[in-house]
Amino acid sequence: MTDTTTAHHAFDADTAVERIGEGRYATVVSAGWDALGGGPNGGYTLALCQRALADALPHPDPLVVSGWFLRPPAHGPAEIAVEVARSGRRLATGGARLLQDGEEVARAVATFTDLAAAEGPTDVRNEPPVLPAPEECRNLLPDGPLPGVTITERVEYRMPELPGWMRGAPSGEPRTEFWMRFADGREPDVLALAPLTDAGWPVVLDLGVRASITVELTAHVRARPAPGWLACRVTTRHVSGGFHEEDFEIWDSAGRLVAQSRQLGLLVA
Amino acid sequence: MTDTTTAHHAFDADTAVERIGEGRYATVVSAGWDALGGGPNGGYTLALCQRALADALPHPDPLVVSGWFLRPPAHGPAEIAVEVARSGRRLATGGARLLQDGEEVARAVATFTDLAAAEGPTDVRNEPPVLPAPEECRNLLPDGPLPGVTITERVEYRMPELPGWMRGAPSGEPRTEFWMRFADGREPDVLALAPLTDAGWPVVLDLGVRASITVELTAHVRARPAPGWLACRVTTRHVSGGFHEEDFEIWDSAGRLVAQSRQLGLLVA
Repeated sequence: MTDTTTAHHAFDADTAVERIGEGRYATVVSAGWDALGGGPNGGYTLALCQRALADALPHPDPLVVSGWFLRPPAHGPAEIAVEVARSGRRLATGGARLLQDGEEVARAVATFTDLAAAEGPTDVRNEPPVLPAPEECRNLLPDGPLPGVTITERVEYRMPELPGWMRGAPSGEPRTEFWMRFADGREPDVLALAPLTDAGWPVVLDLGVRASITVELTAHVRARPAPGWLACRVTTRHVSGGFHEEDFEIWDSAGRLVAQSRQLGLLVA
Repeated sequence: MTDTTTAHHAFDADTAVERIGEGRYATVVSAGWDALGGGPNGGYTLALCQRALADALPHPDPLVVSGWFLRPPAHGPAEIAVEVARSGRRLATGGARLLQDGEEVARAVATFTDLAAAEGPTDVRNEPPVLPAPEECRNLLPDGPLPGVTITERVEYRMPELPGWMRGAPSGEPRTEFWMRFADGREPDVLALAPLTDAGWPVVLDLGVRASITVELTAHVRARPAPGWLACRVTTRHVSGGFHEEDFEIWDSAGRLVAQSRQLGLLVA
Protein backbone atom coordinates (compact mmCIF):
# COMPACT_ATOMS: atom_id res chain seq x y z
CA MET A 1 0.00 0.00 0.00
CA THR A 2 1.29 3.45 -0.86
CA ASP A 3 1.10 5.94 1.97
CA THR A 4 -0.18 9.11 0.32
CA THR A 5 -0.08 11.19 3.48
CA THR A 6 2.91 13.15 4.61
CA ALA A 7 4.70 13.31 7.90
CA HIS A 8 5.02 17.08 7.48
CA HIS A 9 1.52 17.50 8.89
CA ALA A 10 0.51 17.05 12.51
CA PHE A 11 -2.32 14.60 11.78
CA ASP A 12 0.07 12.25 9.95
CA ALA A 13 3.03 12.64 12.29
CA ASP A 14 0.83 12.15 15.36
CA THR A 15 -0.85 9.00 14.00
CA ALA A 16 2.34 7.31 12.78
CA VAL A 17 2.58 3.60 13.56
CA GLU A 18 5.59 1.30 13.29
CA ARG A 19 5.18 -2.39 12.55
CA ILE A 20 7.11 -4.28 15.21
CA GLY A 21 5.90 -7.82 14.56
CA GLU A 22 3.10 -9.95 13.14
CA GLY A 23 -0.03 -7.86 13.76
CA ARG A 24 1.79 -5.60 16.23
CA TYR A 25 2.38 -1.88 15.87
CA ALA A 26 4.10 0.64 18.14
CA THR A 27 2.73 4.16 18.37
CA VAL A 28 2.74 7.19 20.64
CA VAL A 29 -0.43 8.86 21.93
CA SER A 30 0.26 12.54 21.32
CA ALA A 31 -0.64 15.34 23.74
CA GLY A 32 -1.61 17.45 20.72
CA TRP A 33 -5.18 16.21 20.28
CA ASP A 34 -6.75 16.65 23.71
CA ALA A 35 -10.48 17.34 23.71
CA LEU A 36 -12.78 19.57 25.71
CA GLY A 37 -12.91 17.90 29.12
CA GLY A 38 -9.35 16.63 28.94
CA GLY A 39 -7.56 13.64 27.48
CA PRO A 40 -7.07 12.55 23.89
CA ASN A 41 -10.02 13.07 21.55
CA GLY A 42 -11.84 9.84 20.65
CA GLY A 43 -11.49 10.54 16.94
CA TYR A 44 -7.72 10.85 17.36
CA THR A 45 -7.63 7.55 19.25
CA LEU A 46 -9.63 6.01 16.41
CA ALA A 47 -7.17 7.49 13.90
CA LEU A 48 -4.31 5.58 15.54
CA CYS A 49 -6.18 2.28 15.20
CA GLN A 50 -7.26 3.14 11.67
CA ARG A 51 -3.66 3.83 10.65
CA ALA A 52 -2.58 0.35 11.76
CA LEU A 53 -5.57 -1.22 10.01
CA ALA A 54 -4.74 0.69 6.81
CA ASP A 55 -1.31 -0.91 6.90
CA ALA A 56 -2.64 -4.41 7.56
CA LEU A 57 -5.53 -4.48 5.06
CA PRO A 58 -5.04 -4.63 1.27
CA HIS A 59 -7.58 -1.98 0.17
CA PRO A 60 -6.83 1.77 0.33
CA ASP A 61 -10.03 3.35 1.68
CA PRO A 62 -11.88 2.92 4.98
CA LEU A 63 -15.57 2.27 4.25
CA VAL A 64 -16.91 1.58 7.77
CA VAL A 65 -14.89 2.36 10.88
CA SER A 66 -16.17 1.73 14.40
CA GLY A 67 -14.47 2.64 17.65
CA TRP A 68 -15.17 1.74 21.28
CA PHE A 69 -13.61 4.03 23.86
CA LEU A 70 -12.94 1.90 26.91
CA ARG A 71 -10.57 3.89 29.12
CA PRO A 72 -9.01 7.36 28.91
CA PRO A 73 -5.74 6.89 26.99
CA ALA A 74 -2.56 8.31 28.53
CA HIS A 75 -0.14 10.46 26.56
CA GLY A 76 2.85 8.34 25.59
CA PRO A 77 3.74 4.95 24.13
CA ALA A 78 1.10 2.41 23.17
CA GLU A 79 0.85 -0.77 21.17
CA ILE A 80 -1.80 -1.66 18.60
CA ALA A 81 -2.70 -5.34 18.06
CA VAL A 82 -4.28 -5.95 14.67
CA GLU A 83 -5.89 -9.04 13.18
CA VAL A 84 -7.56 -9.57 9.81
CA ALA A 85 -11.06 -11.05 9.96
CA ARG A 86 -11.52 -11.43 6.22
CA SER A 87 -9.59 -10.18 3.23
CA GLY A 88 -11.70 -10.37 0.08
CA ARG A 89 -11.37 -9.03 -3.44
CA ARG A 90 -13.72 -6.10 -2.80
CA LEU A 91 -13.86 -5.70 0.99
CA ALA A 92 -11.43 -6.45 3.81
CA THR A 93 -12.23 -6.30 7.52
CA GLY A 94 -9.98 -6.27 10.54
CA GLY A 95 -9.86 -5.41 14.21
CA ALA A 96 -7.41 -3.26 16.19
CA ARG A 97 -6.92 -2.99 19.94
CA LEU A 98 -5.03 -0.04 21.42
CA LEU A 99 -3.11 -1.25 24.46
CA GLN A 100 -1.33 0.66 27.23
CA ASP A 101 0.29 -1.08 30.20
CA GLY A 102 -1.38 -4.33 29.11
CA GLU A 103 -4.87 -2.85 29.27
CA GLU A 104 -7.15 -2.34 26.29
CA VAL A 105 -7.84 1.38 25.99
CA ALA A 106 -9.81 1.43 22.74
CA ARG A 107 -10.96 -1.00 20.09
CA ALA A 108 -11.71 -0.48 16.42
CA VAL A 109 -13.15 -2.66 13.70
CA ALA A 110 -12.99 -1.45 10.11
CA THR A 111 -13.90 -2.58 6.63
CA PHE A 112 -11.72 -1.18 3.86
CA THR A 113 -12.45 -1.05 0.11
CA ASP A 114 -11.32 0.81 -3.01
CA LEU A 115 -13.78 3.71 -3.29
CA ALA A 116 -12.42 4.59 -6.75
CA ALA A 117 -13.74 1.22 -7.96
CA ALA A 118 -17.29 1.77 -6.58
CA GLU A 119 -19.52 1.40 -9.61
CA GLY A 120 -23.11 1.41 -8.38
CA PRO A 121 -25.74 4.15 -8.66
CA THR A 122 -25.77 7.44 -6.76
CA ASP A 123 -29.01 8.95 -5.43
CA VAL A 124 -28.74 11.49 -2.61
CA ARG A 125 -31.91 12.71 -0.83
CA ASN A 126 -30.22 15.39 1.23
CA GLU A 127 -28.48 18.71 0.70
CA PRO A 128 -25.13 20.03 1.92
CA PRO A 129 -25.23 22.55 4.76
CA VAL A 130 -26.17 26.06 3.62
CA LEU A 131 -23.35 28.21 4.95
CA PRO A 132 -21.79 31.53 3.92
CA ALA A 133 -18.29 31.10 2.48
CA PRO A 134 -15.71 30.29 5.18
CA GLU A 135 -14.07 33.71 4.80
CA GLU A 136 -17.45 35.33 5.57
CA CYS A 137 -17.91 33.21 8.71
CA ARG A 138 -16.66 33.74 12.24
CA ASN A 139 -13.67 31.84 13.49
CA LEU A 140 -14.99 29.84 16.42
CA LEU A 141 -11.86 30.72 18.40
CA PRO A 142 -10.77 34.24 17.37
CA ASP A 143 -8.53 34.52 20.42
CA GLY A 144 -6.63 31.34 19.55
CA PRO A 145 -6.76 27.77 20.81
CA LEU A 146 -8.47 26.96 24.12
CA PRO A 147 -5.86 26.33 26.84
CA GLY A 148 -5.47 22.60 27.39
CA VAL A 149 -7.84 21.72 24.54
CA THR A 150 -4.96 21.04 22.18
CA ILE A 151 -7.17 19.74 19.37
CA THR A 152 -8.14 23.39 18.87
CA GLU A 153 -4.53 24.00 17.77
CA ARG A 154 -4.98 21.32 15.09
CA VAL A 155 -8.51 21.92 13.78
CA GLU A 156 -10.17 25.19 12.72
CA TYR A 157 -13.89 25.89 12.83
CA ARG A 158 -15.90 28.62 11.07
CA MET A 159 -19.58 29.40 11.35
CA PRO A 160 -21.92 32.36 10.83
CA GLU A 161 -22.53 32.88 14.57
CA LEU A 162 -20.95 31.30 17.61
CA PRO A 163 -23.06 28.49 19.11
CA GLY A 164 -25.26 29.54 22.02
CA TRP A 165 -23.40 27.51 24.64
CA MET A 166 -20.18 29.40 23.81
CA ARG A 167 -21.98 32.68 24.45
CA GLY A 168 -23.39 31.40 27.75
CA ALA A 169 -26.88 31.09 26.22
CA PRO A 170 -27.54 27.49 25.10
CA SER A 171 -29.93 27.64 22.16
CA GLY A 172 -32.02 24.64 23.25
CA GLU A 173 -31.54 23.19 19.74
CA PRO A 174 -29.13 20.24 19.60
CA ARG A 175 -28.01 20.76 16.02
CA THR A 176 -25.46 22.85 14.19
CA GLU A 177 -23.67 23.42 10.88
CA PHE A 178 -20.12 24.70 10.46
CA TRP A 179 -16.93 24.56 8.40
CA MET A 180 -13.92 22.55 9.54
CA ARG A 181 -10.33 22.00 8.33
CA PHE A 182 -6.91 21.10 9.63
CA ALA A 183 -5.20 24.25 10.93
CA ASP A 184 -1.84 23.46 9.30
CA GLY A 185 -3.20 23.33 5.77
CA ARG A 186 -3.27 19.54 5.43
CA GLU A 187 -6.00 18.68 2.95
CA PRO A 188 -8.66 16.16 3.99
CA ASP A 189 -8.33 12.58 2.80
CA VAL A 190 -10.18 9.35 3.49
CA LEU A 191 -8.15 8.62 6.64
CA ALA A 192 -9.05 12.03 8.10
CA LEU A 193 -12.82 11.72 7.70
CA ALA A 194 -13.86 9.24 10.40
CA PRO A 195 -11.63 10.94 13.03
CA LEU A 196 -12.93 14.40 12.05
CA THR A 197 -16.54 13.30 12.68
CA ASP A 198 -15.51 13.36 16.35
CA ALA A 199 -13.59 16.64 16.21
CA GLY A 200 -16.52 18.97 16.82
CA TRP A 201 -18.15 19.76 20.14
CA PRO A 202 -21.13 17.73 21.44
CA VAL A 203 -24.25 19.49 20.12
CA VAL A 204 -26.00 18.53 23.37
CA LEU A 205 -24.00 21.40 24.91
CA ASP A 206 -26.75 23.58 23.43
CA LEU A 207 -29.22 21.75 25.69
CA GLY A 208 -27.31 23.21 28.63
CA VAL A 209 -25.56 20.02 29.64
CA ARG A 210 -21.97 20.15 30.83
CA ALA A 211 -20.33 17.47 28.70
CA SER A 212 -20.77 14.11 27.01
CA ILE A 213 -18.49 11.12 26.69
CA THR A 214 -18.42 8.89 23.63
CA VAL A 215 -19.12 5.21 24.21
CA GLU A 216 -19.00 4.14 20.57
CA LEU A 217 -18.73 5.80 17.16
CA THR A 218 -19.29 4.31 13.71
CA ALA A 219 -18.39 6.28 10.58
CA HIS A 220 -19.18 5.48 6.96
CA VAL A 221 -16.77 6.94 4.40
CA ARG A 222 -18.39 7.41 1.01
CA ALA A 223 -15.90 9.20 -1.21
CA ARG A 224 -12.38 10.63 -1.36
CA PRO A 225 -12.87 14.30 -0.43
CA ALA A 226 -11.97 17.22 -2.68
CA PRO A 227 -9.41 19.67 -1.24
CA GLY A 228 -10.70 22.56 0.83
CA TRP A 229 -12.98 23.24 3.76
CA LEU A 230 -15.38 20.54 4.96
CA ALA A 231 -19.01 21.45 5.63
CA CYS A 232 -20.39 19.68 8.70
CA ARG A 233 -23.91 19.08 9.99
CA VAL A 234 -24.40 17.66 13.47
CA THR A 235 -27.70 16.59 15.02
CA THR A 236 -28.96 14.88 18.16
CA ARG A 237 -32.62 13.87 18.18
CA HIS A 238 -32.97 11.34 20.98
CA VAL A 239 -31.72 11.89 24.52
CA SER A 240 -33.01 9.16 26.83
CA GLY A 241 -31.88 8.35 30.34
CA GLY A 242 -28.72 10.36 29.69
CA PHE A 243 -27.79 8.42 26.56
CA HIS A 244 -27.92 10.14 23.18
CA GLU A 245 -26.91 9.61 19.60
CA GLU A 246 -25.00 12.23 17.65
CA ASP A 247 -25.25 12.15 13.86
CA PHE A 248 -22.46 13.86 11.95
CA GLU A 249 -22.32 14.54 8.21
CA ILE A 250 -19.26 15.80 6.34
CA TRP A 251 -19.68 17.33 2.85
CA ASP A 252 -16.61 18.24 0.79
CA SER A 253 -15.95 21.50 -1.05
CA ALA A 254 -17.49 19.97 -4.20
CA GLY A 255 -20.81 19.53 -2.34
CA ARG A 256 -20.62 15.74 -1.97
CA LEU A 257 -21.43 13.81 1.19
CA VAL A 258 -18.06 12.19 1.91
CA ALA A 259 -18.71 10.74 5.38
CA GLN A 260 -21.40 10.32 8.00
CA SER A 261 -21.13 9.00 11.52
CA ARG A 262 -23.32 8.19 14.47
CA GLN A 263 -22.03 7.98 17.99
CA LEU A 264 -23.62 6.85 21.25
CA GLY A 265 -22.80 9.31 24.00
CA LEU A 266 -23.45 9.55 27.70
CA LEU A 267 -24.25 12.93 29.24
CA VAL A 268 -22.08 14.08 32.10
CA ALA A 269 -24.26 15.79 34.70
CA MET B 1 -27.31 -13.11 34.91
CA THR B 2 -30.94 -14.22 34.86
CA ASP B 3 -32.19 -15.35 31.47
CA THR B 4 -35.65 -13.83 31.23
CA THR B 5 -36.36 -15.29 27.80
CA THR B 6 -37.92 -18.65 27.24
CA ALA B 7 -36.95 -21.56 25.03
CA HIS B 8 -40.63 -22.00 24.10
CA HIS B 9 -40.24 -19.32 21.46
CA ALA B 10 -38.41 -19.69 18.17
CA PHE B 11 -36.19 -16.61 18.65
CA ASP B 12 -34.89 -17.96 21.96
CA ALA B 13 -34.59 -21.61 20.90
CA ASP B 14 -32.83 -20.66 17.66
CA THR B 15 -30.32 -18.36 19.37
CA ALA B 16 -29.44 -20.74 22.21
CA VAL B 17 -25.73 -20.97 22.99
CA GLU B 18 -23.91 -23.49 25.18
CA ARG B 19 -20.74 -22.56 27.03
CA ILE B 20 -18.13 -25.20 26.16
CA GLY B 21 -15.01 -23.56 27.56
CA GLU B 22 -13.35 -20.29 28.54
CA GLY B 23 -14.86 -17.78 26.10
CA ARG B 24 -16.15 -20.54 23.83
CA TYR B 25 -19.78 -21.23 22.98
CA ALA B 26 -21.40 -23.85 20.75
CA THR B 27 -24.48 -22.92 18.73
CA VAL B 28 -26.44 -24.02 15.68
CA VAL B 29 -27.28 -21.66 12.81
CA SER B 30 -30.98 -22.36 12.22
CA ALA B 31 -32.59 -22.62 8.78
CA GLY B 32 -35.60 -20.78 10.23
CA TRP B 33 -34.36 -17.19 9.74
CA ASP B 34 -33.38 -17.05 6.08
CA ALA B 35 -33.75 -13.66 4.44
CA LEU B 36 -34.90 -12.41 1.06
CA GLY B 37 -32.08 -13.41 -1.28
CA GLY B 38 -31.23 -16.57 0.66
CA GLY B 39 -29.13 -17.48 3.68
CA PRO B 40 -29.49 -16.52 7.31
CA ASN B 41 -30.62 -12.95 8.03
CA GLY B 42 -27.83 -10.71 9.31
CA GLY B 43 -29.87 -9.69 12.35
CA TYR B 44 -30.28 -13.37 13.28
CA THR B 45 -26.53 -13.91 12.91
CA LEU B 46 -26.01 -10.90 15.15
CA ALA B 47 -28.49 -12.36 17.67
CA LEU B 48 -26.32 -15.48 18.03
CA CYS B 49 -23.26 -13.37 18.84
CA GLN B 50 -25.28 -11.12 21.14
CA ARG B 51 -26.55 -14.13 23.10
CA ALA B 52 -22.99 -15.30 23.82
CA LEU B 53 -21.98 -11.76 24.78
CA ALA B 54 -24.98 -11.49 27.11
CA ASP B 55 -23.72 -14.58 28.90
CA ALA B 56 -20.13 -13.32 29.12
CA LEU B 57 -20.79 -9.73 30.23
CA PRO B 58 -22.08 -8.77 33.69
CA HIS B 59 -24.75 -6.21 32.71
CA PRO B 60 -28.22 -7.24 31.48
CA ASP B 61 -28.96 -4.89 28.56
CA PRO B 62 -27.21 -4.39 25.23
CA LEU B 63 -26.60 -0.64 24.72
CA VAL B 64 -24.57 -0.62 21.48
CA VAL B 65 -24.29 -3.71 19.28
CA SER B 66 -22.32 -3.77 16.03
CA GLY B 67 -22.08 -6.62 13.57
CA TRP B 68 -19.86 -7.24 10.53
CA PHE B 69 -21.14 -9.82 8.06
CA LEU B 70 -18.09 -11.40 6.49
CA ARG B 71 -19.29 -14.56 4.74
CA PRO B 72 -22.70 -16.18 4.23
CA PRO B 73 -23.20 -18.46 7.26
CA ALA B 74 -24.17 -22.10 6.59
CA HIS B 75 -27.06 -23.75 8.39
CA GLY B 76 -25.69 -26.03 11.09
CA PRO B 77 -23.15 -26.05 13.92
CA ALA B 78 -20.97 -23.06 14.70
CA GLU B 79 -18.73 -21.85 17.48
CA ILE B 80 -18.66 -18.38 19.02
CA ALA B 81 -15.40 -17.08 20.49
CA VAL B 82 -15.97 -14.32 23.04
CA GLU B 83 -13.53 -12.03 24.84
CA VAL B 84 -14.16 -9.23 27.29
CA ALA B 85 -12.49 -5.93 26.43
CA ARG B 86 -13.50 -4.09 29.58
CA SER B 87 -15.89 -4.87 32.38
CA GLY B 88 -16.73 -1.75 34.38
CA ARG B 89 -19.30 -0.84 36.98
CA ARG B 90 -21.61 0.87 34.51
CA LEU B 91 -20.56 -0.41 31.06
CA ALA B 92 -19.00 -3.65 29.85
CA THR B 93 -17.71 -4.29 26.32
CA GLY B 94 -16.78 -7.50 24.56
CA GLY B 95 -16.24 -9.02 21.16
CA ALA B 96 -17.66 -12.18 19.59
CA ARG B 97 -16.57 -14.03 16.48
CA LEU B 98 -18.91 -16.55 14.83
CA LEU B 99 -16.79 -19.37 13.39
CA GLN B 100 -17.66 -22.19 10.99
CA ASP B 101 -15.07 -24.65 9.71
CA GLY B 102 -12.34 -22.47 11.20
CA GLU B 103 -13.39 -19.40 9.22
CA GLU B 104 -14.81 -16.21 10.72
CA VAL B 105 -18.33 -15.75 9.36
CA ALA B 106 -19.43 -12.73 11.39
CA ARG B 107 -18.07 -10.51 14.12
CA ALA B 108 -19.86 -8.50 16.78
CA VAL B 109 -18.74 -5.99 19.37
CA ALA B 110 -21.18 -4.90 22.04
CA THR B 111 -21.37 -2.68 25.10
CA PHE B 112 -23.84 -3.79 27.76
CA THR B 113 -25.29 -1.74 30.62
CA ASP B 114 -28.25 -1.77 33.01
CA LEU B 115 -30.85 0.39 31.27
CA ALA B 116 -33.04 0.34 34.40
CA ALA B 117 -30.26 2.27 36.18
CA ALA B 118 -30.02 5.00 33.50
CA GLU B 119 -30.64 8.21 35.38
CA GLY B 120 -29.95 11.06 33.00
CA PRO B 121 -32.38 13.42 31.28
CA THR B 122 -34.74 12.50 28.44
CA ASP B 123 -35.41 14.91 25.55
CA VAL B 124 -36.74 13.41 22.31
CA ARG B 125 -36.96 15.62 19.18
CA ASN B 126 -38.80 13.08 17.05
CA GLU B 127 -42.23 11.42 16.92
CA PRO B 128 -43.24 7.76 16.63
CA PRO B 129 -44.51 6.60 13.22
CA VAL B 130 -48.11 7.65 12.57
CA LEU B 131 -49.82 4.38 11.67
CA PRO B 132 -53.39 3.07 11.91
CA ALA B 133 -53.79 0.38 14.58
CA PRO B 134 -52.21 -2.95 13.52
CA GLU B 135 -55.65 -4.56 13.21
CA GLU B 136 -56.62 -1.85 10.71
CA CYS B 137 -53.47 -2.42 8.64
CA ARG B 138 -52.74 -4.92 5.90
CA ASN B 139 -50.72 -8.01 6.64
CA LEU B 140 -47.70 -7.70 4.37
CA LEU B 141 -48.00 -11.40 3.52
CA PRO B 142 -51.72 -12.30 3.52
CA ASP B 143 -51.00 -15.52 1.63
CA GLY B 144 -48.53 -16.73 4.26
CA PRO B 145 -44.73 -16.80 4.44
CA LEU B 146 -42.65 -16.37 1.28
CA PRO B 147 -41.24 -19.74 0.18
CA GLY B 148 -37.60 -20.04 1.22
CA VAL B 149 -37.68 -16.72 3.10
CA THR B 150 -38.14 -18.47 6.42
CA ILE B 151 -37.81 -15.28 8.49
CA THR B 152 -41.31 -14.45 7.22
CA GLU B 153 -42.54 -17.46 9.25
CA ARG B 154 -41.01 -15.86 12.36
CA VAL B 155 -41.80 -12.15 11.96
CA GLU B 156 -45.10 -10.48 11.04
CA TYR B 157 -45.44 -7.11 9.31
CA ARG B 158 -48.48 -4.82 9.08
CA MET B 159 -48.83 -1.56 7.18
CA PRO B 160 -51.60 0.59 5.68
CA GLU B 161 -50.66 -0.29 2.07
CA LEU B 162 -48.17 -2.73 0.65
CA PRO B 163 -44.86 -1.12 -0.38
CA GLY B 164 -44.61 -0.25 -4.07
CA TRP B 165 -41.89 -2.77 -4.87
CA MET B 166 -44.18 -5.59 -3.66
CA ARG B 167 -46.86 -4.42 -6.08
CA GLY B 168 -44.35 -4.22 -8.96
CA ALA B 169 -44.36 -0.41 -8.82
CA PRO B 170 -41.40 0.88 -6.80
CA SER B 171 -42.44 4.18 -5.21
CA GLY B 172 -39.13 5.95 -5.81
CA GLU B 173 -39.12 6.89 -2.11
CA PRO B 174 -36.60 4.94 -0.01
CA ARG B 175 -38.49 5.18 3.27
CA THR B 176 -41.29 3.34 5.00
CA GLU B 177 -43.17 2.86 8.28
CA PHE B 178 -44.76 -0.37 9.48
CA TRP B 179 -45.63 -2.56 12.47
CA MET B 180 -43.57 -5.63 13.33
CA ARG B 181 -43.76 -8.45 15.90
CA PHE B 182 -42.69 -12.03 16.40
CA ALA B 183 -45.25 -14.33 14.75
CA ASP B 184 -45.36 -16.79 17.67
CA GLY B 185 -46.46 -14.23 20.23
CA ARG B 186 -43.06 -13.75 21.87
CA GLU B 187 -42.98 -10.25 23.31
CA PRO B 188 -40.08 -7.97 22.36
CA ASP B 189 -37.23 -7.56 24.82
CA VAL B 190 -33.84 -5.86 24.74
CA LEU B 191 -32.15 -8.85 23.07
CA ALA B 192 -34.70 -8.81 20.25
CA LEU B 193 -34.30 -5.15 19.30
CA ALA B 194 -30.91 -5.00 17.54
CA PRO B 195 -31.68 -8.15 15.49
CA LEU B 196 -35.14 -6.85 14.55
CA THR B 197 -33.64 -3.66 13.10
CA ASP B 198 -32.40 -5.96 10.32
CA ALA B 199 -35.64 -7.94 9.95
CA GLY B 200 -37.37 -5.63 7.48
CA TRP B 201 -36.75 -5.40 3.76
CA PRO B 202 -34.18 -2.95 2.30
CA VAL B 203 -36.07 0.28 1.63
CA VAL B 204 -33.85 0.79 -1.44
CA LEU B 205 -36.08 -1.85 -3.08
CA ASP B 206 -38.46 1.07 -3.63
CA LEU B 207 -35.76 2.67 -5.79
CA GLY B 208 -36.16 -0.29 -8.14
CA VAL B 209 -32.94 -2.06 -7.17
CA ARG B 210 -32.90 -5.84 -6.91
CA ALA B 211 -31.31 -6.38 -3.50
CA SER B 212 -28.81 -5.08 -0.96
CA ILE B 213 -26.31 -6.86 1.24
CA THR B 214 -25.38 -5.62 4.69
CA VAL B 215 -21.71 -4.92 5.29
CA GLU B 216 -22.07 -3.61 8.85
CA LEU B 217 -24.90 -2.73 11.24
CA THR B 218 -24.75 -0.81 14.52
CA ALA B 219 -27.78 -0.66 16.80
CA HIS B 220 -28.33 1.48 19.90
CA VAL B 221 -30.79 0.08 22.43
CA ARG B 222 -32.38 2.81 24.55
CA ALA B 223 -35.03 1.17 26.70
CA ARG B 224 -36.67 -2.13 27.60
CA PRO B 225 -39.68 -2.31 25.26
CA ALA B 226 -43.29 -2.54 26.43
CA PRO B 227 -45.20 -5.62 25.25
CA GLY B 228 -47.03 -5.40 21.93
CA TRP B 229 -46.40 -4.42 18.35
CA LEU B 230 -43.28 -2.43 17.44
CA ALA B 231 -43.63 0.62 15.19
CA CYS B 232 -40.75 0.89 12.72
CA ARG B 233 -39.46 3.73 10.54
CA VAL B 234 -36.81 3.00 7.91
CA THR B 235 -35.01 5.57 5.77
CA THR B 236 -32.17 5.69 3.27
CA ARG B 237 -30.98 9.16 2.27
CA HIS B 238 -27.59 8.66 0.68
CA VAL B 239 -26.86 6.15 -2.08
CA SER B 240 -23.38 6.70 -3.52
CA GLY B 241 -21.44 4.40 -5.81
CA GLY B 242 -23.77 1.58 -4.82
CA PHE B 243 -23.19 2.00 -1.08
CA HIS B 244 -26.02 3.25 1.10
CA GLU B 245 -26.93 3.66 4.75
CA GLU B 246 -30.22 2.42 6.14
CA ASP B 247 -31.52 4.06 9.31
CA PHE B 248 -34.02 2.05 11.33
CA GLU B 249 -36.03 3.27 14.32
CA ILE B 250 -38.10 1.01 16.59
CA TRP B 251 -40.78 2.56 18.84
CA ASP B 252 -42.60 0.42 21.38
CA SER B 253 -46.35 0.24 22.00
CA ALA B 254 -45.98 2.93 24.67
CA GLY B 255 -44.65 5.36 22.04
CA ARG B 256 -41.03 5.34 23.18
CA LEU B 257 -37.99 5.08 20.92
CA VAL B 258 -36.49 1.82 22.14
CA ALA B 259 -33.82 1.25 19.47
CA GLN B 260 -32.27 2.80 16.41
CA SER B 261 -29.76 1.33 13.99
CA ARG B 262 -27.75 2.34 10.97
CA GLN B 263 -26.35 -0.13 8.51
CA LEU B 264 -23.99 0.23 5.56
CA GLY B 265 -25.32 -1.74 2.61
CA LEU B 266 -24.11 -2.52 -0.88
CA LEU B 267 -26.63 -2.60 -3.73
CA VAL B 268 -26.79 -5.75 -5.80
CA ALA B 269 -27.24 -4.82 -9.46
